[in-house]
Amino acid sequence: MYAEDLEAAAKFYGDMLKLELISWEENRHIFYKCGGGMLLIFNPGHTSAEQTFVNGSPVPLHGAKGPGHLALAVEENDIPQWKERLISYNIEIESEVNWPNGCHSIYFRDPSGNSVELVSSGLWGMD
Amino acid sequence: MYAEDLEAAAKFYGDMLKLELISWEENRHIFYKCGGGMLLIFNPGHTSAEQTFVNGSPVPLHGAKGPGHLALAVEENDIPQWKERLISYNIEIESEVNWPNGCHSIYFRDPSGNSVELVSSGLWGMD
Repeated sequence: MYAEDLEAAAKFYGDMLKLELISWEENRHIFYKCGGGMLLIFNPGHTSAEQTFVNGSPVPLHGAKGPGHLALAVEENDIPQWKERLISYNIEIESEVNWPNGCHSIYFRDPSGNSVELVSSGLWGMD
Repeated sequence: MYAEDLEAAAKFYGDMLKLELISWEENRHIFYKCGGGMLLIFNPGHTSAEQTFVNGSPVPLHGAKGPGHLALAVEENDIPQWKERLISYNIEIESEVNWPNGCHSIYFRDPSGNSVELVSSGLWGMD
């Protein structure tokens, strides 16, 4: 995901969504542990323009603009608490979707305008 | 991730990277199982412009432009085989990075120009 304002992204993904911070390189990126994966949030102004080298090798440039999308699996029973938490952070719930298989999603925006979804974890038959 | 040409993305992520296809909605998206998560690849021309409804509720619009980034964990011992496979698909390896902790990454581009990384799975102490 991309966020030009990493401080604002950290308040959203770290404080509000309670993800565990793994790496924060000022003005370049913040990385969060997220289930069995890692959520990488980059400042596109940095990663698309400033070449980083590790042991002499370039890390390729990247950086997209415009709203991306991220879905995070949560327990169905926890969704009401997540809605309360979003409200307490003054985050507007943009939409709620009831999927044909009985799963349920809530959608809202991160501070950069990315579309974030909390979905009950059975949507694709996954834990 | 975003790809305007989903057929080309499917050859790359499905055939070459051998991810398991879960959902393909023509011209809108392809979803792949990827470890404990799901890789969602959307055609931004569709998801940023054409409102989808599920049981009467809107699925929020999104769609970024420009090169995104994705890292997939692989076994360190499998990296030489992945390099051979990339070569056999005429995919250029853009960079190789040796991380300070002993992990190793190879970087290349998907057909849309997104930066894809295969990284030995110990990079963040994860499986």
